[in-house]
Amino acid sequence: MSIDFQVQATAGEARAATLRTSRGVIETPVFMPVGTGGTVKGIRFEELESPELDARIILGNTYHLWLRPGIDTIKAGGGLHKFIGWDRAMLTDSGGFQVWSLGALRKITEEGTEFRSHVDGSLCFLSPEVSMEVQAVLGAEIAMVFDECAPGEATRDEARRSMELTLRWAQRSKDAFDELQTAVPPPPLADGRSGRLANAKPSPLTLLPVGEGKQNPLGTPTQRQALFGIIQGAGHLDLRRESLERTAEIGFDGYAIGGLSVGEEKHLMMEVIEDIAPRMPFPKPRYLMGVGTPEDLIEAVARGVDMFDCVLPTRNGRNGQAFTSRGKLNIKNARFALDQNPLDESCSCSVCRRHTRAFLRHLYQSGEMLASTLLTHHNLAFFLDTMKRVRQAIRSGQFAEFRREFTEQLHCGLE
Amino acid sequence: MSIDFQVQATAGEARAATLRTSRGVIETPVFMPVGTGGTVKGIRFEELESPELDARIILGNTYHLWLRPGIDTIKAGGGLHKFIGWDRAMLTDSGGFQVWSLGALRKITEEGTEFRSHVDGSLCFLSPEVSMEVQAVLGAEIAMVFDECAPGEATRDEARRSMELTLRWAQRSKDAFDELQTAVPPPPLADGRSGRLANAKPSPLTLLPVGEGKQNPLGTPTQRQALFGIIQGAGHLDLRRESLERTAEIGFDGYAIGGLSVGEEKHLMMEVIEDIAPRMPFPKPRYLMGVGTPEDLIEAVARGVDMFDCVLPTRNGRNGQAFTSRGKLNIKNARFALDQNPLDESCSCSVCRRHTRAFLRHLYQSGEMLASTLLTHHNLAFFLDTMKRVRQAIRSGQFAEFRREFTEQLHCGLE
Repeated sequence: MSIDFQVQATAGEARAATLRTSRGVIETPVFMPVGTGGTVKGIRFEELESPELDARIILGNTYHLWLRPGIDTIKAGGGLHKFIGWDRAMLTDSGGFQVWSLGALRKITEEGTEFRSHVDGSLCFLSPEVSMEVQAVLGAEIAMVFDECAPGEATRDEARRSMELTLRWAQRSKDAFDELQTAVPPPPLADGRSGRLANAKPSPLTLLPVGEGKQNPLGTPTQRQALFGIIQGAGHLDLRRESLERTAEIGFDGYAIGGLSVGEEKHLMMEVIEDIAPRMPFPKPRYLMGVGTPEDLIEAVARGVDMFDCVLPTRNGRNGQAFTSRGKLNIKNARFALDQNPLDESCSCSVCRRHTRAFLRHLYQSGEMLASTLLTHHNLAFFLDTMKRVRQAIRSGQFAEFRREFTEQLHCGLE
Repeated sequence: MSIDFQVQATAGEARAATLRTSRGVIETPVFMPVGTGGTVKGIRFEELESPELDARIILGNTYHLWLRPGIDTIKAGGGLHKFIGWDRAMLTDSGGFQVWSLGALRKITEEGTEFRSHVDGSLCFLSPEVSMEVQAVLGAEIAMVFDECAPGEATRDEARRSMELTLRWAQRSKDAFDELQTAVPPPPLADGRSGRLANAKPSPLTLLPVGEGKQNPLGTPTQRQALFGIIQGAGHLDLRRESLERTAEIGFDGYAIGGLSVGEEKHLMMEVIEDIAPRMPFPKPRYLMGVGTPEDLIEAVARGVDMFDCVLPTRNGRNGQAFTSRGKLNIKNARFALDQNPLDESCSCSVCRRHTRAFLRHLYQSGEMLASTLLTHHNLAFFLDTMKRVRQAIRSGQFAEFRREFTEQLHCGLE
């Protein structure tokens, strides 16, 4: 196992831990900015690394990177870290959620998921084996099993069918992953492909898209990755528990709760987290996928979750929405036209130190790229700083107080 | 006069000088990044201030800022520096070139220029007096006279008519400017406007657009600005000389060559610069407006120019074009798909230290904002570093050699 996870302090179900990877130490609970296509949209890596944000781990999307630029390009670039120029830790999702999100555009079978590329319309096929191959080339510290998601309002039967499929795919992911990880990389073959990929279980369609120009066998991971399992079961607690138990039986380096924040009611989401998180294997990291608002994060931490990713701070930032200690703020609003205050009086990020709401609104109204950049920066600073304060609160035995104060302030409204 | 200009070294017509302003010392020859609407597009102020770029002065566009967010918003924000959060020097153009560029959308009379706002279609009127009022509110260290431009291929008659108008407008600009600058700002009037603006010569239409909400009389410059005159005359050297002579008679803190790089042949542009620059009043800064490529800059410096602004590094960066020491490079080109080299092997900017052409191409092809950000950063780094090397070369007596080597390398092609 390439990661080491040590719980160091608890406060009720909440826990502060250290996740060691070969690319740095990550203090948890942690928020992972989403770097879909090899970039956390709107922000430079230098900012993510700065003491102000200090993002220790970012997420990469297998689906997006596989389609564009394609794994041959990333292999030629020496793996995802080297290709994009990020030397801290990364986690790659499996593409399962993305292809599931395509809705009518994809066809799910026992073997995997067939879909049309959103980039060029070509027919693609993603399966547990293909996802593991692609994630091995990407080379993130943490890979995820290929799963299927069920809609938030899935019936019991739908949710069971989906959960059973995810369990079979989890086993296949594990098998493919183990084969890829334990094989000693052989020397490159004459055709430029590594034997490992050439010997891997063939998928019905070849890996798509094929990059332009010469191939380079570099980029296969030089060290063992970690693999996380994903718990499904929609809003049905008994299915969730069964999914957890049977996923844990397969055995992973960490466990994620998937299939939440996909349209279900928020109280149902919290019910699932509250029931499932504390039951997840104790000495392993617990990752809640795709969640959520700052409040969601605090509440999930209180229920025992260690890791989070979400597009909210980046996507909403690009759309003019700022997260602040006193709630959300839409910079487009005319009431900010002459507002000389920073986005968040309590925030000490470089955007809040320097710029007024009036200026940020002007940038947004003018369609200036800098509006997205600055709002994204502030939002990430707010999310990452909130998690830092969460960790400090847990370690100093003040988490309950912090949670109460944070939530109260969030609801007291903008000045 | 609020600026002080001291020539300290020369190499032929080229000169290295120090331009002191109340917001810092600017070493010339200098390139000014263009900050049209209160932002140098695609880059944060922190990057512009970093030692790597160290932009000492940026340009703001009166036309754009006047239309959006409008002067009331900028006044409420305490002037342009404070509104945008930039505490180094700025120069504002007069809007003359921008309204001239509107072509059929504007009507030029003796009084000024009437046009439709590109933001909301409202009827606007810009004149020497209005431009000076607006520029006083913006409060840049250097303001420009309101001029009219003639097309590159203007006939002698057209060019003379335009030049004569510009001369009359130059005198009116100077008169309005002096009145605005020398008046001691009176206390705010009851209606929230400063007496200075209220007493200024009324323009046929009111200042547009009117900002939303309450007005704030702050934002009027607290110290004297400098005003530069603009030499016109299209490609006719005798008209250019006459324009220079009569503009100098009015008397300004510095002089600019306007109306170049507007469609005329490059050799004609250089002919005008070569003839006019050395004749410009010696102890005053010489500013070549809207020019140009790195090669143009070097050649104009060799002919005696001190200051430049141009959208090339920022606009072309957003469009995927990089300027390098070996010429231009279009990152969209498929030949860069697997190229593991930086944009420019000779460049030590943060983009070239960290990212490959392959990654930058991927970002561009994916429509990622980061592509624009990184190409803009590199281009500005290249322009600003080139000017730094120009200054060093002049001061160390190596300018002729530098100019030859720089130009040779530029033409030897990309590796």
